[in-house]
Amino acid sequence: MKYGFANRVKHLQSSAVRDLLKIVEKGNVISFAGGLPDDNLFPVDAVKAAFEKSFHAEKSSLQYGTTEGYAPLREVIVEQMKENGIQSNIEEILLTTGSQQAIDLFARVMFNPGDVILTENPTYLAALQVFQSYEVKIVPVRSDEDGMLPDDLEYKMKKFKPKCIYVVPTFSNPAGKVWSLERRQFLLEMAKKKKAIILEDDPYGQIKFNSEEIYTPIAALDDGTHVLYTSTFSKTVVPALRTGWIKGPHQIIRMMSQAKQAADLHSNSLSQHALYHLCRDFDLDGHIQMLRKTYYERMRIMHDSLQAANIPGLSYVIPKGGMFLWVQLPEAMNAVNLLHQAVKQGVAYVPGAPFYVTDQKLNTIRLNYTHSSPEKLVKGMELLINVFAETEDHIYS
Amino acid sequence: MKYGFANRVKHLQSSAVRDLLKIVEKGNVISFAGGLPDDNLFPVDAVKAAFEKSFHAEKSSLQYGTTEGYAPLREVIVEQMKENGIQSNIEEILLTTGSQQAIDLFARVMFNPGDVILTENPTYLAALQVFQSYEVKIVPVRSDEDGMLPDDLEYKMKKFKPKCIYVVPTFSNPAGKVWSLERRQFLLEMAKKKKAIILEDDPYGQIKFNSEEIYTPIAALDDGTHVLYTSTFSKTVVPALRTGWIKGPHQIIRMMSQAKQAADLHSNSLSQHALYHLCRDFDLDGHIQMLRKTYYERMRIMHDSLQAANIPGLSYVIPKGGMFLWVQLPEAMNAVNLLHQAVKQGVAYVPGAPFYVTDQKLNTIRLNYTHSSPEKLVKGMELLINVFAETEDHIYS
Repeated sequence: MKYGFANRVKHLQSSAVRDLLKIVEKGNVISFAGGLPDDNLFPVDAVKAAFEKSFHAEKSSLQYGTTEGYAPLREVIVEQMKENGIQSNIEEILLTTGSQQAIDLFARVMFNPGDVILTENPTYLAALQVFQSYEVKIVPVRSDEDGMLPDDLEYKMKKFKPKCIYVVPTFSNPAGKVWSLERRQFLLEMAKKKKAIILEDDPYGQIKFNSEEIYTPIAALDDGTHVLYTSTFSKTVVPALRTGWIKGPHQIIRMMSQAKQAADLHSNSLSQHALYHLCRDFDLDGHIQMLRKTYYERMRIMHDSLQAANIPGLSYVIPKGGMFLWVQLPEAMNAVNLLHQAVKQGVAYVPGAPFYVTDQKLNTIRLNYTHSSPEKLVKGMELLINVFAETEDHIYS
Repeated sequence: MKYGFANRVKHLQSSAVRDLLKIVEKGNVISFAGGLPDDNLFPVDAVKAAFEKSFHAEKSSLQYGTTEGYAPLREVIVEQMKENGIQSNIEEILLTTGSQQAIDLFARVMFNPGDVILTENPTYLAALQVFQSYEVKIVPVRSDEDGMLPDDLEYKMKKFKPKCIYVVPTFSNPAGKVWSLERRQFLLEMAKKKKAIILEDDPYGQIKFNSEEIYTPIAALDDGTHVLYTSTFSKTVVPALRTGWIKGPHQIIRMMSQAKQAADLHSNSLSQHALYHLCRDFDLDGHIQMLRKTYYERMRIMHDSLQAANIPGLSYVIPKGGMFLWVQLPEAMNAVNLLHQAVKQGVAYVPGAPFYVTDQKLNTIRLNYTHSSPEKLVKGMELLINVFAETEDHIYS
């Protein structure tokens, strides 16, 4: 039988790259492709202890829960965000199945087909997929290393009257960049002036290499009316619990909560109980310090390999945190084509092209440094640089 | 600031009844309102042991998982469904955040605004809310105790050319009815003839009071092309793990899986690992036998109270399983109005009206008998019957 699908899923297609990478993850290839934390660094004992406590502390840990999520965990999140300068109360917080669901529910309650959203370019691929599924018009804003360019932002706010601006201002995925405070302030100012909402996606903010450095969330600059802020425990604790949250104006959070009730009633509440106990009983700050140090060292290995290789025309920004190193290859190189060759040599990455809304740069790649051991990083980079060097010889010979 | 929301959420409004019941659940009122299993019957030790095993059996239990869900659990589900006559393979199964998410993802990939879906009337309220959120036209089919009436079904299939028929044929929510085999066969025949899809929602099938009785799922009559079948571990194990599944043609499941990737990447995978171990190590069949027996006894208490009260004009069908007793009060009674009075007296229920697509019967109520202890069932029914009797005196005096 031939099945008729909804228009909104017409763009949903498995890409050749994704299919290739699925195979890669199963094999012996060293993969810099995924966005995974290192399972060897997971606080397994702490997670285990937290679950043990949850089974007995409250009977409700195994029963149906509220759509908004376990209130004591929302209180913990209020406290954690306060340390980052974000003021809130639990009525402004909805627990979600990872921050991915926060993006989806936000889009679900906000957008009619044809509504406009401004984004960085490149930006988080899976957010683009969500927006596309709601048939939203995505307009990219030009950026430099410090964030969206004020001129282009102002021009596009005027021209397209966007309902929302989606940004990953701290250690962006894929480009690994950090917005300056001035650019954050300017974006908020524009949003207020033009009555638009900012969706600030901050999954990586805690993974900063310099613990002293402060990257003020845009939500911390706001009076609680124009910014929705989403983050997750996936990078700081473990991903499998799929626990993220979104903070925003109660009116929007309430609507999202009603949409969530239809979507899945509520997220896994046992995990919410366990995360509450973990945040109370475990030195999560100390754990995050360890992650920062370890991931920094791994980033340095990757960076040092690239620097030593000294390939003309290859450039990158040294990340100040997060999980990704974003590389521009020499212009003549096509990262999608090169991927096949790289996989044959035993190493994989994600081509940068799909992260672009428009003006795809085919010579970009995203490298993840958090999931591989130092040994694999050294070996993988050696293989990868060989592929680049050979290709370069080929192009210029 | 005034926020502009999407059209699809305009119907999402907190109802007065829901708000009242939220308050009720926090107080000392005996509630027959929710659809909760009894937490005192949860297999806590088995769940605990299953989690303990998961932490150490496989490192992947805490890492990101696949969107489709943990393959060994999907294999267990294939085996379990086979016992119910449903043939499948793991490529046809998607794990979801409860079966609620299965309904949502199905609607998401199938429906354009204006598409038609046929349903029973009354039917599962939260499914109606999902369909409404995708701006689907919901057309109710007339039913009797054995399921949809063939004449009306045939007429509406012809007239409305529905893309889908949504049914809860075994211990329906709210009406607690069981379809006859003939009606199941007729529905499938009609679906095949008219190239429509059946979404068979079966959360309660395992909670049957006569273990020997066989209620063949419609999916077991199908050749795998026309029926999507969804169920859950929420009623047989515990709800908090939010683990349900949907089985259907690979082409649709694959599309739903791609939609799920955008919606939340994947459901809680630690719980999927734990459920796998629980199904292997624990006598789940024995546990379900205990649930059947216990819930049957509770249903009898409720039923006996109603019978003894002998209120003229009050009628109900004795459930053969599931979690609900569906009561028709005398015609002159309005269950929404009565609820306030009942709550004042210390007992709550859900008025039946919101479960109707059209032709709401204001004199219907849904009573849950699984969540209250026998003592509370006796006491609560006493209070409730007093409310009915007093109202009746008032009406007929």
